[in-house]
This record gives sequence, structure tokens and C-alpha cells, in this order.
Amino acid sequence: MKEISKLMDYRPDIKVIDATLRDGGLVNEFRFSDEFVKHLYNANLRAGVDYMEFGYKADREMFDESKFGPCKFCDDEYIRSIVGENNTDLKIAVMADVGRCNYKQDIHDRSESPVDLIRVATYIHQIPTAVDMIEDAKSKGYEVSCNIMAISNAQEGDIKAALDILGKSPVDVFYIVDSFGSLYPEQIARIADMYCNMAEKYGKKVGIHAHNNQQLAFANTIEAVGDGVDWLDATYSEMGRGAGNCAMELLLGFLKNPKYNVYPVMQFIENHMLKLREDGIVWGYDLQYMMTGLLNQHPRTAIQFTNEKRKDYAEFYKEILSQE
Amino acid sequence: MKEISKLMDYRPDIKVIDATLRDGGLVNEFRFSDEFVKHLYNANLRAGVDYMEFGYKADREMFDESKFGPCKFCDDEYIRSIVGENNTDLKIAVMADVGRCNYKQDIHDRSESPVDLIRVATYIHQIPTAVDMIEDAKSKGYEVSCNIMAISNAQEGDIKAALDILGKSPVDVFYIVDSFGSLYPEQIARIADMYCNMAEKYGKKVGIHAHNNQQLAFANTIEAVGDGVDWLDATYSEMGRGAGNCAMELLLGFLKNPKYNVYPVMQFIENHMLKLREDGIVWGYDLQYMMTGLLNQHPRTAIQFTNEKRKDYAEFYKEILSQE
Repeated sequence: MKEISKLMDYRPDIKVIDATLRDGGLVNEFRFSDEFVKHLYNANLRAGVDYMEFGYKADREMFDESKFGPCKFCDDEYIRSIVGENNTDLKIAVMADVGRCNYKQDIHDRSESPVDLIRVATYIHQIPTAVDMIEDAKSKGYEVSCNIMAISNAQEGDIKAALDILGKSPVDVFYIVDSFGSLYPEQIARIADMYCNMAEKYGKKVGIHAHNNQQLAFANTIEAVGDGVDWLDATYSEMGRGAGNCAMELLLGFLKNPKYNVYPVMQFIENHMLKLREDGIVWGYDLQYMMTGLLNQHPRTAIQFTNEKRKDYAEFYKEILSQE
Repeated sequence: MKEISKLMDYRPDIKVIDATLRDGGLVNEFRFSDEFVKHLYNANLRAGVDYMEFGYKADREMFDESKFGPCKFCDDEYIRSIVGENNTDLKIAVMADVGRCNYKQDIHDRSESPVDLIRVATYIHQIPTAVDMIEDAKSKGYEVSCNIMAISNAQEGDIKAALDILGKSPVDVFYIVDSFGSLYPEQIARIADMYCNMAEKYGKKVGIHAHNNQQLAFANTIEAVGDGVDWLDATYSEMGRGAGNCAMELLLGFLKNPKYNVYPVMQFIENHMLKLREDGIVWGYDLQYMMTGLLNQHPRTAIQFTNEKRKDYAEFYKEILSQE
């Protein structure tokens, strides 16, 4: 049982990362208006959020620019058009996917960029490329974190081996990522223990990125906080792929760090997030996502079910049961 | 950290209580069709649910029968019209509120009733009347549980005193009730510890009834399972007052007891729960309920906000902040 002081007190080391544009962008092809992004930036400033993730550094050779909003590519010029010189305490992050980012070309020196943090996202079998990306970003002056995705399908021994390689790299933060929203808090406790031990050995920090397939994104995030995880991803109205993420409003309501303020989050939701839903953008907990989470599967089948406006949940469950 | 065996294995002592008609009835004045109730009964039978709560034993002197469906009153004849002699493993429960139930008159001998379990619901200052109701129900042959409501606003010393009185009564089960949806899993762990210690002393069982204001109803319920709580309330599609309850589909997906089967729950949701939402019945997590949960307040202001179809969340938050 954790100590009551952990609920009443706070850790100054906590960092909150707003991933609304990045994970949320996966449900609207990153088509956020400049006005939306500017208001979100201002809300994050007022809420005391530590990092704002603008989206992906996607490779234009692979992705057609006309099919996505600017947060898919996160050009320095685009980000600067929103944040100017960003002389604030809110740092800027972008995600770079292994195999989908021309990082040597598209990530410029930090001295020329408004970006502060490069978030490298990798599957466990891609770790060597991830390390190359980490070294590239570090050499260009950035803070760097690394998300190992889909760990609920990985062997513990493989995860430890990956963390050992990452530990020897110059990365700053290891991220626990529950890509399928399939992990329960007890599992998060054990995984956090493994990540924190490896992080301590190598002088790194640990973060968590949760999905809400089983309505556990917030619960798993605060479980991780209690276990010593410091970097916490959240999104406004839990906007994110499929069932969405840990809700920023829940997380800032929970954290006692005096720098955080939940009220601007509520205002932004009222003024901007409700509109997205009215416009027909769909995300958040629903039975089909619960099913893929329960079965520890990628949510792509559930996303297709959603897009096809199917309602035959029981039939869908039988379909995905037989996919093993 | 809890043992992995608790996740992989199961406890035969676990009991699952379907509270859909009772807590869900609070959002539609208990206007469930006989067909709906019969299908729910059949779904519970197939899902292996242990108890099905039909609703309240409300006092007709206080509540106008024309304004509510039959699950508000739960006459033996009504329940029998659904379940017949109920020669099944699914037991029948009803709730009796202190101060709102004419129990001496309206609760008949178990030998004449299809009901198996009387669930006495009490605030902490009403414990002596609760004990009288418990003794009355026990003398009539029922299993009896007792829900102490709104404990997130009660002093620990008062809760212990109440449990000590209940321990000496013939009640079978103490229920942890997070009426306001304000408790975090760490707090549930401490409360479960207190309840389980008192239960062990007096030879009672412990249950939990959670609300989903902070998307923690399921997380708090599985936290409690890990802490030794055996009686678990859930509702289909988490239907219940305000933000709703722990979802039956999440709970049965989590529990490994071979007797439980989540598939009939999914079928019932598809065939019957979606229709309720289409008909305009509103429940479930929303920002106004998160706010009252965060502030540890009764959700009545949030329910009014919902009924008035207000969308000015930030203004509402300021209103309830100033109610202290």
C-alpha cells in the first residue's frame, strides 16, 4: 500500500506532456486549425503543462502532404508561426517514428528550431535504429525520450534487453507505452518497477503513455506516479487514437504540484474540444476498443469497426477472438 | 505490489452483483420494460452473475407510484412476473434505503418472496435505523448487506465506529460505497484494509460499489479485488446515476473465475443498452461529473447541469467551487 503522503504531497520532478495534437491528430489526420493550436498553446501555458507535443516529424517521401494537417510534419516554420520564439516555461516536443522519419534531414539543429524534445517511438525490434535516432537528436542538442511501443506483447527479457541498450544511449527518458490499452494497474506497477530500476542504473527518467481501452488510462497513469514514474502523457478530453489517452483534466485534477492549474483545461475543452466532437471527430472509450484491449490486440480492427459505423459488437468480438 | 498470481488466478469467493436496474433506474425513473428486464435476467444467468438487483423497496407513502416504473418498488409479484420461481443460481436482490422504505410492512418473509438479499443503504448518521432494518430482514430469513454511503466525506473514526456497530449486527456484508466518485485507488486500498480488518473480526464479507466520476469505477473495483474485497457491484454499460458505475463488461473481462462469461453482456449491450441511449437516456462520464468527483461533492449539481443541457463547464466549475 502506498503512503498517504504521496497523495497529499507532490513531487517537483513530475513533468506533464500534452499529446493532444500528436495522438489526437491520429483521429483527424492532424487537421487542427492554427487558431485551435494557438489556443491550446495558451491553455497549456496557463495550466502549467511542461511540454506540448506538436505532432510527428513524418517523412514527406512516405506521406502525402495534401492528405494531412501541418502537425503530421511539424516543420520548424509551422511551429514558430504558433509559438514565436517561445520564451516561456512550456517546452515543445515532436515525435519521430522509427522508419517513418527522415531524421538526418528533417530534424535540424536545436539552435535553429523551436523544438526542445525529440520523442523517438520504436517497436522493440527496431531498437538499433532508435538508438541511431537518439544519438542524432542528442548531437543536434535536443532532449530525447524513447517510447517502446506495444510492450504488452513483448517478453520481459526482451524489454530488459532493450532498456539495457537504451540505458547506454544518451536518451534522457524511457517511456512505458500501453499501446493496446490492455494493461491493468498491477501490471503497470511491475513494469514501472522494472523501468525505474533500469533508469536508476543508467541515470535516466521514466515516463508513461496510456490508452483508455479499458477505462484505465488515468488509473494506470496515477498508479505509475505512485511507483516513481515522473513523465506523464495526457490529452485534452483524452483525445487520441481509438479509445484515447489519459485525460489532461483528470491528471491535473489529481496532481498536487502547485504549478498546475486545471481551470484553463476546462475552459479549452468547453471552447474548443466540444466543437471537434460536434464536427463529427470520433474518439474515446467504446465497447469495440474495450474488446481489443481485453484481448491485447492492436486497435486497428476496432478503429475500422468505428469508421464503418458498425453496431454489431457481439459479432465483432467473435471476429477478433478468432484472429489469434 | 500485489502478486501476479492474483491477476492470473481467481478467488471462488468473488460475487458479482448486477445493479443495472437499481442504480441505472435512477436515470430513467425505473421505467424499464418487462421485456428489457427479462432479457437482462437471462443475460445475467448466462454471464454467471451472482446477484441481480431489481431496484428499491420504496415507500409508497413517500413516492407516487405513477411517476416511476415498477423497479422503484420491487413488489414480490412484479419480480415473480419476471423470474417465476427463479430456480437458478442467480439470486435476487433489492435495496432498502433508511428513511425511504416501510420495511416492516413492505418486506415480507423470504419464504413468500423471490428476493434473496436485502441491501440496506444508509448514511453514517443513520446506523441505528440501519441496524433495525438489518435485524428485521434477517429475522425474515434474508441475506443482508449494508451500504454505508458517502464515506469520502466521513471521518475515519466515525466509519470505524459504524463498522463496529454493524459488526455486532447480523448483517452479512459491509459495502464500501464511493457515492461521489471521488476516491483514488490508493484511498480504496486503505479503506478496504479498514473494512476487511473489521469484517474479519466479526466474520463478515466486504463489497464495493463505485462511481465513475473520475473514470476510476473499474480501477477502484479491481484495486479492491486485490485487497480482499469479494462482493463487486457493476452495471451494464456502466448505467447509473450521473457518471455511472463500474461497467459489467470491464469487470467480467477482468475476472478469471471460470463461471463468468462476458459474451452475453456484450450481446445485451448491443441489443438493449444502445437503444436506451438512442431513446435519450443520458448517463456516464462527463466533465461536470469529473468536477463534482474532484471536489468530493454530491453529483446533484452536475445532474442538474446535465438535465438543463448546459455546456458552460468552466462557469459550472466556478459555481461549485464557491459552494464550500
